[in-house]
Amino acid sequence: MCVLGLGLIGGSLLRAATATGREAFGYNRSVEGVQAARFDGFDATTDITEALTRAADVGALIVVAVPMPALPFMLTHISESAPDCPLTDVTSVKSAVLDEVTGAGLRERFVGGHPMTGTAHSGWAAGHARLFTGAPWVLSVDDHVDPAIWSMVLELALDCGSVVVPARSDEHDAAAAAISHLPHLLAEVLAVTASEISLAFALAAGSFRDGTRVAASPPDLVRAMCEANAGQLLPMVDRAIEVLCGARESLAHDNSVAELVDAGHAARTRYDSFSRPEIVTVFVGASQWREELAAAGRAGGVIRSVLPSLDNPR
Amino acid sequence: MCVLGLGLIGGSLLRAATATGREAFGYNRSVEGVQAARFDGFDATTDITEALTRAADVGALIVVAVPMPALPFMLTHISESAPDCPLTDVTSVKSAVLDEVTGAGLRERFVGGHPMTGTAHSGWAAGHARLFTGAPWVLSVDDHVDPAIWSMVLELALDCGSVVVPARSDEHDAAAAAISHLPHLLAEVLAVTASEISLAFALAAGSFRDGTRVAASPPDLVRAMCEANAGQLLPMVDRAIEVLCGARESLAHDNSVAELVDAGHAARTRYDSFSRPEIVTVFVGASQWREELAAAGRAGGVIRSVLPSLDNPR
Repeated sequence: MCVLGLGLIGGSLLRAATATGREAFGYNRSVEGVQAARFDGFDATTDITEALTRAADVGALIVVAVPMPALPFMLTHISESAPDCPLTDVTSVKSAVLDEVTGAGLRERFVGGHPMTGTAHSGWAAGHARLFTGAPWVLSVDDHVDPAIWSMVLELALDCGSVVVPARSDEHDAAAAAISHLPHLLAEVLAVTASEISLAFALAAGSFRDGTRVAASPPDLVRAMCEANAGQLLPMVDRAIEVLCGARESLAHDNSVAELVDAGHAARTRYDSFSRPEIVTVFVGASQWREELAAAGRAGGVIRSVLPSLDNPR
Repeated sequence: MCVLGLGLIGGSLLRAATATGREAFGYNRSVEGVQAARFDGFDATTDITEALTRAADVGALIVVAVPMPALPFMLTHISESAPDCPLTDVTSVKSAVLDEVTGAGLRERFVGGHPMTGTAHSGWAAGHARLFTGAPWVLSVDDHVDPAIWSMVLELALDCGSVVVPARSDEHDAAAAAISHLPHLLAEVLAVTASEISLAFALAAGSFRDGTRVAASPPDLVRAMCEANAGQLLPMVDRAIEVLCGARESLAHDNSVAELVDAGHAARTRYDSFSRPEIVTVFVGASQWREELAAAGRAGGVIRSVLPSLDNPR
């Protein structure tokens, strides 16, 4: 397995994949990242052609773990040096990545992925092998995906301790806008608004600390994920503004925030009791398998162990 | 000491004050709350007149720990049965309480307070003696406050393990709107917006969970604190809408959220490194002591041990 980019996610994946017994090696642009990985006993290089030639020689699964802006550079190199390798990624937006991959002529061997995990810190040093344990890992079931490659990436995600959520790229992006990108923007808004009030930081406690936690994330990462998903994020921001303005009018004219508070509490309660049935019956590669998995994921279903497939009919 | 209302905060205060060696007793409207407190070995009654007559007999400090809607009822009883007792409260809004107290003719013996602590749960059972440990406890330094009563409440807050932040009621309310009431509304907005997207709960992870945590608070408590502070909360909501709309326009037209994300990150970083110098030199009761404490609190100052005063010149 070949991991391109050894930041928080890629670096954690190199550790986790090695821990599962896979032969895994990595590429990183900066010498510092590679030196840190080597110091910790991992196989890493700053030479992208060397990494990809090696991947092509052994038919390794390539995992792209670089931020969106670095993606075209990576895909150009992959097209040149390892176009036939199975390919996945761990980027937080899926439609934009799929478009780039399609443009690079690499779509047929590609299955998009997104492990929904992280910390407020970044870089090799912030990573660890158990970062994926218990985290949802989205695997794309877009119309083009190949069942054998899909099963291969599924096995990687499960071996890393994740539960897998099958989803179409466009539906993933709408959901990610709602539960990740919008929360980041609201956290920034809260931090900015409070910072303008003289006594605010002196009194800040739990609700401010939690509400602004993700505002401590590196700004370039927040920008990259929000801006790459602008098409899905904009309607979410518009809806949030609409809901907030509704509450503002109700507070100003009826001195009530009842409607918002009741609806918000009901939604959070529904989230707390959201059930996660296990998906076990879909045969990967059978007729309509992608549609069935997308529907099951939408209903809250998750995959906790390898599904039956042509290679593994059970 | 007499605690009126044995919910999360009042119940925790009865426990904490008893643990400091104070003679403390409580009143609660519901029989269930009183029975639970008695079962745990505390001195409690459902008879408000009995509690207040006893407080008047011993000149006890009375702590009002009921939600805003129940405040007028309490103040009427205090005016009748214990008008000369020193009086404080633990309510999350301060100007509205001060107005009610003034209306009831009890202002001269009153020092408003607000321990900035809590959990998502409520009621006697949710409380514990260490709820106040390390939490900021705001004590009002409005123009009318009496230095002897102020020192008495200060000592209670310090004995409960809090750090005390001196503040004027109006400044407290503006800050509370920014760091508590606005975060609650934004959490509700986020929960509502995400609940409308089919795959959202299936993918929700850290940033959604943290961003909506306070949406799990009991709706009536959230409403009570937001609606009682509408005058300060409205401009905060307007500012948040303005900041969010600015980011929306920038995202729509320039595909950039740079300005918001950079400002939010800078604000959160400033909060993380906000220093809390100890206030030690103000002599409670000296000329301008209230103004000096308000300025020190605004600058981040906290009180960690009893200040010098007429009774305790050091």
